[in-house]
Amino acid sequence: MGRITRLKTGIYFKSYSAVGGYEERRGSLGHLFDFCDETDKFGQKTWELAEGEMGRIALNTAMSKANLSHNDIELLVAGDLQNQCVASSGGLSSFGIPFLGVYGACSTATESLIILSSYMNSSENMKYGAAVTTSHNSAAERQFRTPIEYGGQRSETAQWTSTAAGAFILAKGEGDVMLTEIMPGRIVDGATGDGANMGGAMAFAAFDSIFSYFAESGENIHDIDLVVTGDLGRVGSDILEELLAKELPGLERKHADCGLLLYDMNNQDAHSGASGCGTSASVLACHFLPMLKRGELRRILFLSTGALMSPSSLLQGENIYGIAPLIRLEGKQK
Amino acid sequence: MGRITRLKTGIYFKSYSAVGGYEERRGSLGHLFDFCDETDKFGQKTWELAEGEMGRIALNTAMSKANLSHNDIELLVAGDLQNQCVASSGGLSSFGIPFLGVYGACSTATESLIILSSYMNSSENMKYGAAVTTSHNSAAERQFRTPIEYGGQRSETAQWTSTAAGAFILAKGEGDVMLTEIMPGRIVDGATGDGANMGGAMAFAAFDSIFSYFAESGENIHDIDLVVTGDLGRVGSDILEELLAKELPGLERKHADCGLLLYDMNNQDAHSGASGCGTSASVLACHFLPMLKRGELRRILFLSTGALMSPSSLLQGENIYGIAPLIRLEGKQK
Repeated sequence: MGRITRLKTGIYFKSYSAVGGYEERRGSLGHLFDFCDETDKFGQKTWELAEGEMGRIALNTAMSKANLSHNDIELLVAGDLQNQCVASSGGLSSFGIPFLGVYGACSTATESLIILSSYMNSSENMKYGAAVTTSHNSAAERQFRTPIEYGGQRSETAQWTSTAAGAFILAKGEGDVMLTEIMPGRIVDGATGDGANMGGAMAFAAFDSIFSYFAESGENIHDIDLVVTGDLGRVGSDILEELLAKELPGLERKHADCGLLLYDMNNQDAHSGASGCGTSASVLACHFLPMLKRGELRRILFLSTGALMSPSSLLQGENIYGIAPLIRLEGKQK
Repeated sequence: MGRITRLKTGIYFKSYSAVGGYEERRGSLGHLFDFCDETDKFGQKTWELAEGEMGRIALNTAMSKANLSHNDIELLVAGDLQNQCVASSGGLSSFGIPFLGVYGACSTATESLIILSSYMNSSENMKYGAAVTTSHNSAAERQFRTPIEYGGQRSETAQWTSTAAGAFILAKGEGDVMLTEIMPGRIVDGATGDGANMGGAMAFAAFDSIFSYFAESGENIHDIDLVVTGDLGRVGSDILEELLAKELPGLERKHADCGLLLYDMNNQDAHSGASGCGTSASVLACHFLPMLKRGELRRILFLSTGALMSPSSLLQGENIYGIAPLIRLEGKQK
């Protein structure tokens, strides 16, 4: 009995891609994205369709890199932030790949990789699967907050929902970075109902997963190069690092957060950092997986962090719940 | 390469429960529900919280029947129809069980069972897992359509979203009904944007899954006692049966639909039938699993059917996509 599953069939990242918009190109990692659309519209007539198209481009790019077609991919696991996840179902429908839709707020990237890899581990003859995660600033703003034309003032704890997608092709026995362990997250009360401080609400869930991982695995913190969270931003990262310093001393210096990496925090108006499920998906694809592939990192824990709430639940006075599914990644030894 | 995965580790339904509201108690299967709340409120102050509490009661009931506590359950897979699936995350948070949230519209029940069973098949030491699916008429009506107080006229093709939950405990090697095969659905264009005819939009996805299953498995249609769909209702069932009569003749007479079973179609105002992801979840739990357990059915295919769309996507003129993940169930041979 335990939360960690070790994947024994040798599941690797065969290829991956990151796609973004205008702000993402200007951000600190912009030069590493495969494609950025300067209009954020991806040729579509609505922001909602634009998000779906961004996901389609991301998956298409990842398949091209792996020299695979949609006929080779046996399962697609995807999710996004739009109500009823219509960006994923609409945008990815044209591929005709068997599909499992997930909802994990901003934890979608690691949640999808957990579902996909366990499915592949379970299905003997399955060789290739794909996971796609998207978020779109303009679609998210008008759905979760106010119409963008309204120009509402944002607080310093607020984060900027990224217009970004990450796509991943997993393969058995082929690839440079191995997905060795998976651990679903627990739902943890974020102790706040402030929708402009989601990083703070998710920090406890991230800590719960990291602490549980080391307790159960017995892994030494010195053997892990980095613990990467999805989108805690400044506020959430401060809380998490304080907790780590107390309970797993030393680990706080090995913490990185995708929400603090995506944008140029000095010159872009991202407030507490990037958020949105595309954040951890795209930063994993364009930054951390290539570093593992090149041997600059050997072993990392990667946790996308999700704030489980809806605009209605906040208006009804409910707290935000956090969740942080965790995966362990290992670069091929040289 | 194929869509079907055969589960080889012996995964069974250990226990299951169905919970509903006022209309569900009055329906044709009302006497089979474990608990129905005559107020539809489940002691909560909002419909949204009521849905979460209904799911909590369902899971609690299923765990009690199996003589298991939340500490025994290693993974919980759940989803619902509320924006951002807050019924599941809020309602089930108190258990503290590792959680994977899914979104599959009304296909959630079989999608969750596919994800859960493949995870269990993949994780050697995992013994027990749970899946919970809920929908609530009053929460869904004001979110997807109009406030219920408005009393809008409904068309004859429209369906009645059930206030219902189904919870399932899966176990390795323990139980009377075996989950033998799983097959994720493909996203199929429903060729309509009419949100008052979702049954019609989903029929093609159901046919795609059933046809693909028999083509790939080579199973004889005579060896299957029943093919059960989730919530096609009258309109969708007619379309599916016409397609089956043409392409898999004989199978149209073995088709049953949970949406036509839940309510008393002559005396309740359900129009084309029940819908909502709680429909197939509760009917599986209170009707079909007991029949398999008692040996009245030996082998069935069960497909929850989902209409992938959002109120925004319909207003923007997009079509409804359908999806129908399939599972194969087998009663223990006497």
